Amino acid sequence: MKTLRMSIIGFGSVGQGVARVVSMKQDYLQSIGLELKVVAIADSKGCEINSEGIHLEAALERKAKTGTVAIEGNGAGKDKGKDSIFAIENVDHEIVVDTTPTNTQTGEPGLTNILTAFDHGRHVVTSSKGPLVVAHRTLVDAARRNNVEFRYEATVGGAMPILNLARDALAGNKIERIEGILNGTCNFILSRMTEQEGYTYEDVLSEALGLGIAETDPTSDVEGYDAACKVVILANSIFNRDARFEDVDITGITRITPEALRLAADHGYVIKLIGLVSDKELSVAPKLVPKGHPLSASGTLNVASIQTQLAGHITVSGPGAGSLETASAILSDIISIYRSSS
Amino acid sequence: MKTLRMSIIGFGSVGQGVARVVSMKQDYLQSIGLELKVVAIADSKGCEINSEGIHLEAALERKAKTGTVAIEGNGAGKDKGKDSIFAIENVDHEIVVDTTPTNTQTGEPGLTNILTAFDHGRHVVTSSKGPLVVAHRTLVDAARRNNVEFRYEATVGGAMPILNLARDALAGNKIERIEGILNGTCNFILSRMTEQEGYTYEDVLSEALGLGIAETDPTSDVEGYDAACKVVILANSIFNRDARFEDVDITGITRITPEALRLAADHGYVIKLIGLVSDKELSVAPKLVPKGHPLSASGTLNVASIQTQLAGHITVSGPGAGSLETASAILSDIISIYRSSS
Repeated sequence: MKTLRMSIIGFGSVGQGVARVVSMKQDYLQSIGLELKVVAIADSKGCEINSEGIHLEAALERKAKTGTVAIEGNGAGKDKGKDSIFAIENVDHEIVVDTTPTNTQTGEPGLTNILTAFDHGRHVVTSSKGPLVVAHRTLVDAARRNNVEFRYEATVGGAMPILNLARDALAGNKIERIEGILNGTCNFILSRMTEQEGYTYEDVLSEALGLGIAETDPTSDVEGYDAACKVVILANSIFNRDARFEDVDITGITRITPEALRLAADHGYVIKLIGLVSDKELSVAPKLVPKGHPLSASGTLNVASIQTQLAGHITVSGPGAGSLETASAILSDIISIYRSSS
Repeated sequence: MKTLRMSIIGFGSVGQGVARVVSMKQDYLQSIGLELKVVAIADSKGCEINSEGIHLEAALERKAKTGTVAIEGNGAGKDKGKDSIFAIENVDHEIVVDTTPTNTQTGEPGLTNILTAFDHGRHVVTSSKGPLVVAHRTLVDAARRNNVEFRYEATVGGAMPILNLARDALAGNKIERIEGILNGTCNFILSRMTEQEGYTYEDVLSEALGLGIAETDPTSDVEGYDAACKVVILANSIFNRDARFEDVDITGITRITPEALRLAADHGYVIKLIGLVSDKELSVAPKLVPKGHPLSASGTLNVASIQTQLAGHITVSGPGAGSLETASAILSDIISIYRSSS
């Protein structure tokens, strides 16, 4: 049995999902020879630190009741005021799991968290797009210099396993082009507008808000910015480029009319917001997709079609969001680090 | 730079594809630090052995001209009569790539090839279903005992990367059920019967024969036996079972009428031959699939929908056959062995 100690930095929906999944999976992890202990959890108000392993259910309950994982009062466990960086620097552990909210302009707070982790010789798994969008090369170089692993499957497509698929399962293949539905909210909106005759963009957006599928400010999703961030991450990690957000041609879905969707349907097509990554082009734009094509999948699914040199098109799809779904991608990254370090 | 030496045992369509792909990919392999040398190639008539590395284009050309890779004449290179087992036992190398034709009753000749390789401390990559169908546990145990790797991605779905996806990218997830289109010939036949009104099973079968999509004796495909073999391999490798061919309930596609397909289409469905693997059920049978569902993919594609505990359904599709396609899956396995051994 090998023990790996980890921290969870950021304790919102994804961070809490990670705590739940790690707690739920202890038996399985032990069956593959891994004892995984969470020794620090930090949110914006403070942190809990316990080198013996945090009681995860108690931490989740405290977060739900008080709004923070930090423990009030004096004495042992009083960690309020100690922040993420303190935990990353001073708590002995091997893996930092960064699930902080993403800022795709500055990359913070994930960027500083991750670089600090590398400086202290810790592996990093992140679900935060920002750091990768603004500083992919810097991060990859820092990880290499410190001889640690850096994994970020959850940043693109949540539980849709595209990055690890490209790196491991398709290792023998040159990837020439990736086209994908990279934003579940847009896919939901376009799918509903297609299914429900006469439904306008605004009608469906308010339905999506009601269902919790769209955010209160849906700009990042519907204008294609979120998908563009994922295009940048795919370009840099799979195509080894140094692309930035500004390099992506972006058109969102706000101007798509029910008439356009109906016209497409009459000719055997659906309209999807497609992110495209190739050596020559980085774009996000609504495109016509033939019905029955793998990229015609409806609902909140994410889908990626990978054009390979030797094996034609390999397509993968899965839920693009969700707390446990995203956490399961993070756990797969942790297990991958465990396997490559043992 | 690390050097790995390999043999290719079996030099039909897949084995020749492996030689082509290894030859084609030398620059790429060196860029990831791997010098991959083919030091033996064997077919049923003999073998070529060269510890310095076989000239692959010359070997492919000789095979095309003479029907065998073995070299005629006296002196150096005269290896006719030396057989696969000789090469596996006596040539110094690290990886045996077995691409022999499959016999799903006896598992031979792959079974003996693979066990011999393990006994000599060599890793094995195979595309042959037979050995896995008749002796999965024996093989896995023998690999473990000899501390070598055993990979067989190409046995299920050709270039559709399901086994490695389940093992690596979905490592953090319990897989509860797999449903898939595991035979491209049947998918082609059913797709064409659906598209082409009035086309009978017999009409399409002769079209498929003409296109080289069906074999002269299509029994194994159309009766569902090939898909059943893949069900057994998935059950044993992903669900850790000890299933045998006899444990699979099998119904083929020979009795599906154009009328049944039309009736399904009128209600928004297509009919697909679906292999199902769960803790409780192993089956291959024609099933109704809603149009637009990931399993409704048409053509010769293979598709697998993986129901996970935490991440909903992850679906993967790709070409289920083809010389270079299958060879690319074998190369991914070789690279995976290189990575885990370095």
